[in-house]
Amino acid sequence: MVSTIDASARSKALDIIKSSMREIIEQIEKGEKPTLVMPKRTLTNTIYDYKHKMLLLGPELQKRSFTDVNEAKKFMQTLLMASIIYDALRNNEYPTIRDLYYRGKHSITYKSIDGKRVSENTWDEQRESDSVIRDLEVLLSVLREDLLILSKEKGKVVGNLVIRSGDDVIDLSKMGHGAYAIEPTPDLIEFVDIDAEYILVVEKDAVFQQLHRYGFWKKNKAILVTSAGQPDRATRRFVRRLSEEYNLPVYILADSDPYGFYIYSVFKAGSITLSYESERLATPTAKFIGVMMTDIFGDSIFRKIIKDREARKILEEITPGITDLKPKTPYLSESERSNFIIKAKTRDLERAVELIGYRVAEVCIEEKDAKNKIKKKEGLTGYPWFTTPQWVRELCIFFNTLSKLEIEAMASKGLKFLADKYIPEKISTGDWID
Amino acid sequence: MVSTIDASARSKALDIIKSSMREIIEQIEKGEKPTLVMPKRTLTNTIYDYKHKMLLLGPELQKRSFTDVNEAKKFMQTLLMASIIYDALRNNEYPTIRDLYYRGKHSITYKSIDGKRVSENTWDEQRESDSVIRDLEVLLSVLREDLLILSKEKGKVVGNLVIRSGDDVIDLSKMGHGAYAIEPTPDLIEFVDIDAEYILVVEKDAVFQQLHRYGFWKKNKAILVTSAGQPDRATRRFVRRLSEEYNLPVYILADSDPYGFYIYSVFKAGSITLSYESERLATPTAKFIGVMMTDIFGDSIFRKIIKDREARKILEEITPGITDLKPKTPYLSESERSNFIIKAKTRDLERAVELIGYRVAEVCIEEKDAKNKIKKKEGLTGYPWFTTPQWVRELCIFFNTLSKLEIEAMASKGLKFLADKYIPEKISTGDWID
Repeated sequence: MVSTIDASARSKALDIIKSSMREIIEQIEKGEKPTLVMPKRTLTNTIYDYKHKMLLLGPELQKRSFTDVNEAKKFMQTLLMASIIYDALRNNEYPTIRDLYYRGKHSITYKSIDGKRVSENTWDEQRESDSVIRDLEVLLSVLREDLLILSKEKGKVVGNLVIRSGDDVIDLSKMGHGAYAIEPTPDLIEFVDIDAEYILVVEKDAVFQQLHRYGFWKKNKAILVTSAGQPDRATRRFVRRLSEEYNLPVYILADSDPYGFYIYSVFKAGSITLSYESERLATPTAKFIGVMMTDIFGDSIFRKIIKDREARKILEEITPGITDLKPKTPYLSESERSNFIIKAKTRDLERAVELIGYRVAEVCIEEKDAKNKIKKKEGLTGYPWFTTPQWVRELCIFFNTLSKLEIEAMASKGLKFLADKYIPEKISTGDWID
Repeated sequence: MVSTIDASARSKALDIIKSSMREIIEQIEKGEKPTLVMPKRTLTNTIYDYKHKMLLLGPELQKRSFTDVNEAKKFMQTLLMASIIYDALRNNEYPTIRDLYYRGKHSITYKSIDGKRVSENTWDEQRESDSVIRDLEVLLSVLREDLLILSKEKGKVVGNLVIRSGDDVIDLSKMGHGAYAIEPTPDLIEFVDIDAEYILVVEKDAVFQQLHRYGFWKKNKAILVTSAGQPDRATRRFVRRLSEEYNLPVYILADSDPYGFYIYSVFKAGSITLSYESERLATPTAKFIGVMMTDIFGDSIFRKIIKDREARKILEEITPGITDLKPKTPYLSESERSNFIIKAKTRDLERAVELIGYRVAEVCIEEKDAKNKIKKKEGLTGYPWFTTPQWVRELCIFFNTLSKLEIEAMASKGLKFLADKYIPEKISTGDWID
């Protein structure tokens, strides 16, 4: 019943775990203290590689020794998790991280040095077992998907693309009004045939449905993907592989708010706390196509801000070249704007500061109340990939207007407008942010 | 580009709106006051039909007259929405309810009787426009999907099933490791061929992935569906159609907690506040296969409770026959239980009372603190379809243990256990709750 692809992935994974654990056995046989050595998964060891435009783990290593009282528990948790995963692989299973948490959760009772009976849990919360899985990923230099650990998966795709998954060949241009739900192990997909010029990733499933139904991908030779909100690992890996292997541009269409900008950021550079994944999950060439603040407001607000000498100086210092940006005209009329925009919440403001840093916010926010709300974020410098003239302009307009806008508002101007004008025009004129 | 199926759905929808609006024109031409008449969408007009096992709207009607100052706004909102949807249909669009909210949102300025300029918004929040869409659905006797209103869609399916959707014929047994994402308008699907004995609906996407990958649906001739949490309209309609048209039993596999029980309830009877949909969305034959409280604890706890004469009297009164239930043995050992169960939260307790009524809770809860927490729910009688001996036993055990359990805990006993023993055994022995 099980596909040959899974069978070979399984035996590969078993070998990887076996050879890593063999090292421990060798240490013991040599009389050494059993020790695990793996890259450090800390923020200080997370580096943004400007050349590859990716978050990567740095060179720092950490050791987990069985005989060190501070490390013994972590050492044992790691070995416990490795053995559970090993057993699952051997038993033809496909555990989830929730499963693995349950499988390993139990109490160990032992006699302490002073003769007391002590009982300790392997782990209490899933947070703990998840962290152990991450340790194993960096220890073994694999992603959990390579160990056939599955997870829920929201990503969908349609387009002129033929894939082989499991034992089936699937034509993703023949999905009717439905779509193909991406598998949780996208590295096991084989791309058989493709006829596309770019990949359009839509944040919202409902907008994906509209564009799909309208025939957008046929008309524009696009591969249409939705992440249905915050993208999961499989969707990110799928987009990355497709763009890399066929050298296709990736455009992200998300809401015009810090949450939408963050979704672009996760596709492009990955999560800052899970940088070890980025090397395989991030798509550094991904471009934000919209909805931009400048699509809503144009850039007159921004030009007014940088008329102020002091503001201009600070913003030029943060991103040289910001005063040379080409002017932009909005897609929305005054009355559409007033019907469509939504007031930003404190959480939006805070997230925006996390993206771009406190200084941009300080220069652009006029409202006192809003200024106070983000005081606690003072000192934040923002993510390197957001510190570009275009993004600073976008965020500056956000901070000044304290407004946001959903893709649906663009669709409500007419699906024709969204599908036949807005998206194709932005792509053909290069009106995106890299 | 647009499929012929959509074209015909579109022209049908246009006709329905046109003929309904023609009535208004006729009223005006006859010199009558323009009035809309539609079934009342209130709780008092919501009836549980014991024969069809469904929530339905009762016979009460409501009128919306243009010339009644209290109804004029609602009347105009309804006509505004009808005209927006009509335009969208004519323009080959596929709006979402969010779209429709944006499309209609604007201010109307007019002179009041006393000569003042007054400005009023068509609607302010989506709650308002959504309610207008529901009014239109009952006015026109259609579901919004019949008007080609799309929405996000989480449901997925795999199995020996061939469908026609749009212009494509799709074999749902050839989806590789991925799945088929159900379209938002499942009434436009044509079932071409099927070879299955039952439909298994899994609440959790991650468990769906595991069972799919394990080949469960091939081995058991099942159509495997996931709602990925709370089911959306399309998934419910898809399951209903499939079960009805092929007379297939539907089994729901959800977490063992009031939230999981509620998911079964939505599939089976529909939402109590949206009963007008149930006629087409609910699957009254759906059975809850697990995870049951009795799968975890057996029924000794329950038998202890009904040893008490007073408790037995009350529970017999609520559901005659409760003392005749066959005994049940648990699937979990003592130590598995202690590792797997999760403490129920106040929200779980409250939801459980909503399902089964306050009296069952009162009889079964021993803990004082928990008793106090649900005091405010006093008087609730529960849903009719939960007032059965089996469900009362389940909830009684829940109230007594204040514990819940996830499907993943069952999977962590081994996917083999879940796929080859637990599910097939429960189905073959009829160990479900109707």
